[in-house]
Amino acid sequence: MKKIRIGIIGAGRIGKIHADNLLRLPETEIVAVSDLFAGPELQAWASERGIAIVTTDSNEVIANPEIDAIFICSSTDTHVPLIKQAAEAGKHIFCEKPVSMDIRQTEEALEAVRKAGVKLQIGFNRRFDHNFKRVREHVQGGLIGEPHIVKITSRDPNPPHPDYIKVSGGIFMDMMIHDFDMARFLSGSEVEEVHAIGNVLINPVFAEHGDVDTAIVTLRFANGALGVIDNSRQAVYGYDQRVEVFGSKGSTAASNDHPTTVEISTVDGITRDKPLHFFLERYNAAYVEETQMFIDCIVNDKPLPVEGNDGLQAERIALAAKLSSQLGRPVKVSEALNLLIQPLRSE
Amino acid sequence: MKKIRIGIIGAGRIGKIHADNLLRLPETEIVAVSDLFAGPELQAWASERGIAIVTTDSNEVIANPEIDAIFICSSTDTHVPLIKQAAEAGKHIFCEKPVSMDIRQTEEALEAVRKAGVKLQIGFNRRFDHNFKRVREHVQGGLIGEPHIVKITSRDPNPPHPDYIKVSGGIFMDMMIHDFDMARFLSGSEVEEVHAIGNVLINPVFAEHGDVDTAIVTLRFANGALGVIDNSRQAVYGYDQRVEVFGSKGSTAASNDHPTTVEISTVDGITRDKPLHFFLERYNAAYVEETQMFIDCIVNDKPLPVEGNDGLQAERIALAAKLSSQLGRPVKVSEALNLLIQPLRSE
Amino acid sequence: MKKIRIGIIGAGRIGKIHADNLLRLPETEIVAVSDLFAGPELQAWASERGIAIVTTDSNEVIANPEIDAIFICSSTDTHVPLIKQAAEAGKHIFCEKPVSMDIRQTEEALEAVRKAGVKLQIGFNRRFDHNFKRVREHVQGGLIGEPHIVKITSRDPNPPHPDYIKVSGGIFMDMMIHDFDMARFLSGSEVEEVHAIGNVLINPVFAEHGDVDTAIVTLRFANGALGVIDNSRQAVYGYDQRVEVFGSKGSTAASNDHPTTVEISTVDGITRDKPLHFFLERYNAAYVEETQMFIDCIVNDKPLPVEGNDGLQAERIALAAKLSSQLGRPVKVSEALNLLIQPLRSE
Amino acid sequence: MKKIRIGIIGAGRIGKIHADNLLRLPETEIVAVSDLFAGPELQAWASERGIAIVTTDSNEVIANPEIDAIFICSSTDTHVPLIKQAAEAGKHIFCEKPVSMDIRQTEEALEAVRKAGVKLQIGFNRRFDHNFKRVREHVQGGLIGEPHIVKITSRDPNPPHPDYIKVSGGIFMDMMIHDFDMARFLSGSEVEEVHAIGNVLINPVFAEHGDVDTAIVTLRFANGALGVIDNSRQAVYGYDQRVEVFGSKGSTAASNDHPTTVEISTVDGITRDKPLHFFLERYNAAYVEETQMFIDCIVNDKPLPVEGNDGLQAERIALAAKLSSQLGRPVKVSEALNLLIQPLRSE
Repeated sequence: MKKIRIGIIGAGRIGKIHADNLLRLPETEIVAVSDLFAGPELQAWASERGIAIVTTDSNEVIANPEIDAIFICSSTDTHVPLIKQAAEAGKHIFCEKPVSMDIRQTEEALEAVRKAGVKLQIGFNRRFDHNFKRVREHVQGGLIGEPHIVKITSRDPNPPHPDYIKVSGGIFMDMMIHDFDMARFLSGSEVEEVHAIGNVLINPVFAEHGDVDTAIVTLRFANGALGVIDNSRQAVYGYDQRVEVFGSKGSTAASNDHPTTVEISTVDGITRDKPLHFFLERYNAAYVEETQMFIDCIVNDKPLPVEGNDGLQAERIALAAKLSSQLGRPVKVSEALNLLIQPLRSE
Repeated sequence: MKKIRIGIIGAGRIGKIHADNLLRLPETEIVAVSDLFAGPELQAWASERGIAIVTTDSNEVIANPEIDAIFICSSTDTHVPLIKQAAEAGKHIFCEKPVSMDIRQTEEALEAVRKAGVKLQIGFNRRFDHNFKRVREHVQGGLIGEPHIVKITSRDPNPPHPDYIKVSGGIFMDMMIHDFDMARFLSGSEVEEVHAIGNVLINPVFAEHGDVDTAIVTLRFANGALGVIDNSRQAVYGYDQRVEVFGSKGSTAASNDHPTTVEISTVDGITRDKPLHFFLERYNAAYVEETQMFIDCIVNDKPLPVEGNDGLQAERIALAAKLSSQLGRPVKVSEALNLLIQPLRSE
Repeated sequence: MKKIRIGIIGAGRIGKIHADNLLRLPETEIVAVSDLFAGPELQAWASERGIAIVTTDSNEVIANPEIDAIFICSSTDTHVPLIKQAAEAGKHIFCEKPVSMDIRQTEEALEAVRKAGVKLQIGFNRRFDHNFKRVREHVQGGLIGEPHIVKITSRDPNPPHPDYIKVSGGIFMDMMIHDFDMARFLSGSEVEEVHAIGNVLINPVFAEHGDVDTAIVTLRFANGALGVIDNSRQAVYGYDQRVEVFGSKGSTAASNDHPTTVEISTVDGITRDKPLHFFLERYNAAYVEETQMFIDCIVNDKPLPVEGNDGLQAERIALAAKLSSQLGRPVKVSEALNLLIQPLRSE
Repeated sequence: MKKIRIGIIGAGRIGKIHADNLLRLPETEIVAVSDLFAGPELQAWASERGIAIVTTDSNEVIANPEIDAIFICSSTDTHVPLIKQAAEAGKHIFCEKPVSMDIRQTEEALEAVRKAGVKLQIGFNRRFDHNFKRVREHVQGGLIGEPHIVKITSRDPNPPHPDYIKVSGGIFMDMMIHDFDMARFLSGSEVEEVHAIGNVLINPVFAEHGDVDTAIVTLRFANGALGVIDNSRQAVYGYDQRVEVFGSKGSTAASNDHPTTVEISTVDGITRDKPLHFFLERYNAAYVEETQMFIDCIVNDKPLPVEGNDGLQAERIALAAKLSSQLGRPVKVSEALNLLIQPLRSE
């Protein structure tokens, strides 16, 4: 069997995680890795893993005729040009979320992918989480009847570095975008309207960049269901990732994962472990599975579990949420782009 | 010690519950009970309990000079006139929620109470629930730092009778009003702005009365915190009453009460009891405690745990939520009354 | 309807609890209470409750022709003579556990009850606990198939007063006797053989009286099932009362009751309440129900939920456990009495 | 850095698991694998993994001068001769449990290891389980004070194949031996005396081989603590692996691991996943860690986490339990070997 040969663009934390997960798959081989800051350290990392080519030039990876698929793990602003190039070069593409912060550009990238007939998977890793998959199975299997309310709690253990905040695209595009995808994934329906409220309660640095650190967004789905997502940049007890779908026949809910099941009972109460600390711990197995699925879909030419359109829709919702937060009113997802292009005079 | 002598107006389900709880208190005595439909059955009920006077005329109760305090458990539209009368007669008053569906009338009732110098407690029984009191203690004690997010889930096991729906005042005034009070109780802050979304997903009869059966409301508190409440008129698994307050130092959360702690493990999974079925089961002890506190505050002239103003504030929030749901935009609590009085032309 | 008139013998903590629970039942009336140390305090307690007769002489209570049923709540050494007297006087009897510490005397008391044709209920209150009843329902309903293993954890929050230890009859007769009854109740089978191990780990005072403060007893049931009970006189985190029945089709298990369901999550972990502190808190509702059932069985001449024989069997198992602990070997319940009468020379 | 070169003897399920776990460690290399039934399938398995030598002859592995350490994963009866050979050949050894079913032989094997100065780790994988490690940390850290009671529940989802039952050594040596090791691991103390009861409740085939399928064993530890272990060969709801250590300052307890945290609430109750199915699922990460630790101890010449003596002690306790079950009385661990050698006439 011919192996799927991979090129990795961007060898930061997430690029390296994908690389190590790919290396465990018998049907893949990593041929090349590029990173703007490639140096002796990356060289050593690559040679330990038998990756032959290390370069600072992503073109070299994309142009390599040996390579079947590209993992785009570089900074968000590079995603669209890289997707276009890779698509034109006939490579399958795995791209980290978000595709871009500009919906029109995302659409262009998707168009390039369509034309080239290649596969594009978006890195919504949480769809592969054991808990959330089970919740979706319950919903899809009709076990809770028609969905009425979707609730998502999503809080990080600590805020990102201040330097990152200004380029992050804001809480809705950077952090809640995962939850927007989760809302679509769990409900099996599109989001039509959002209303966002937010505040700066953790660190004034967010305000400096026109961002908030705490936010709640309500959703109206096409199927009539209602939804709510709450985000905080800082849950001191750890990564808080819970979902619930409530429907006509019941409710299905996932609570957090914890390092152990141990409880200690003393005169002070009964205490158990905090949740798994952050995304690397919580979604470790999900990262493995998303790369496996991507490779499996290429090998067996199957439909992808997360497509380019999923990236686009989440971005559209995120944009609507951002505008809602700024305008102080509900925003329809369908009107968001127009609102952005033609700043409202009346507001 | 002189006993506190009570008159009960309205001997429906909740009036009888209060009566039985009062009868267990050594410091109280029930002197009279009135009900529009008083008949032999109520007569029998009263005589079993040693209640001497049974009448169809509430005036008889209020005018009785033997009586120190009145429990108003009749229908909502009678609350304001009865409060005024009772206040003028110098009686202390316990009144079920809501005081009225018209904020201006509620204000008048409160004014009458103020002038008369009597005590008025509102029947927000959930404040006396063991779980919610503990959550509030955690918040007040600073254990979770500054509150950032208040989340309240509140779902009934089944919708009210269709006849009741049309006079209920709607989901926000009838059902979510408890949650608005809870939001103030837990956060220790006033609600400044609300945004409500709702839908009819359970029974079209709600639509016939301009009501919804499923709703989510987001809140902005004066202290900067954000909040969210979700309501459903029908959780098939039972009464779902949970709260969470998330803050700078952690989170405190109450889950449901269950009839037993028993879990059964079989080839089909691990199964435990549904939550306690409805408010009579869940808030049984809370009802006892709210009457005890009321009597204690009278006997020892202490400040009440829930005052007339608490009733008023919850009604103001409920009105704002109702308007928000109708107008499709956030509504400030401070503007709600004006919005109501001067119907918006532009909407 | 004629009321059941009650006499209470022994007005300590448990006697007063039964009295207050009886007073809530519309079909009962307490006529008299006796206590060796009856004085002004008891007088006041009784008059508050409308109990006419207060005496130091239990004979006065038993001889009272007005009285239908006697609650024996005095010290264990008085149970047998009082049961005999009450039975001869034709009164129904509720007697606290254990009936006595001498099985032959217990048998005599039961014989007197049989002859008189009165009812005798033993105060095994835990049978009325909501959790344990549910576990038994699961077993009786066949939901876990044939029982294979019965596990009971039963630990007190603190040891009794040293003065009590010497007259307590030891951990097996005083404390584990409840668990022996629970083992019979849950398994639906008789205990045939026990093996007990124990140690003094909490307070040397237990050793002074030939007692232990920590013990584990294994059981062989007539139906082939195996069982195990562990007891500690001091669980610093509170009253620990859990049971599990494991069988061919699954397992059913009850965990502790807690004052609230609240969990607080901070940097230090996730903490919830300790269990309800002790038997008065945990078995509050069970005490109410056992008296209700007793009265109901008298009023409607129904079979009792806990009979004299249940008291006897638990005492036989307790004796066997005590002997096993002393002899260092398994003891058959059927041989225990002989072992006691004819001290083994060979051991 | 020179790699640790490994030879695997016995390529059944557990041998292959160890192999795959070793292959992930950068500091190891598998040089050879032997299996009595080595054929084309094993050949293929080995070549996929780059293992050069595949043989039916374990001598070939032991004699290979390239090899630093041997994993003995063959049937129990081969362990002792292989350990002796490997030790004489100067190889470090990882051996599955039990070392043997004859304590005297186990002692001989340990003596050979001592003389040769090589390392011998026993495959008590559960010591590396995240939950049990945490319980032990709590105990070692003094968080629960002095241990008083150790409770271990250990039930398999289904019985082994009938063919295996007759050669298994019986429930105490085959299954409960893990729990005896766990008892020593958690308590930090030696077991001095055991009492075992058992029965055949699942399948009569166990009786045919003088074995039981359900057993409870109580333990007396050298430090005064008491313990109890219950085993069943068939828990229909899955692998049930729980422990608790109760002490003077509290209790620490591990419950089962589950595939997800999801709960579904319907009219039928609240249901969650059964525990992880069996040892491969539950102890997956523990298997990885035990091999890592073994290699780490070789590379850095550190003391092993589980030594030959741990294997010996668990076997001594298992023998005592087996004899106790047969003799119907408590057996001291120190007397077990003599009991076996000189069959008691008086029993």
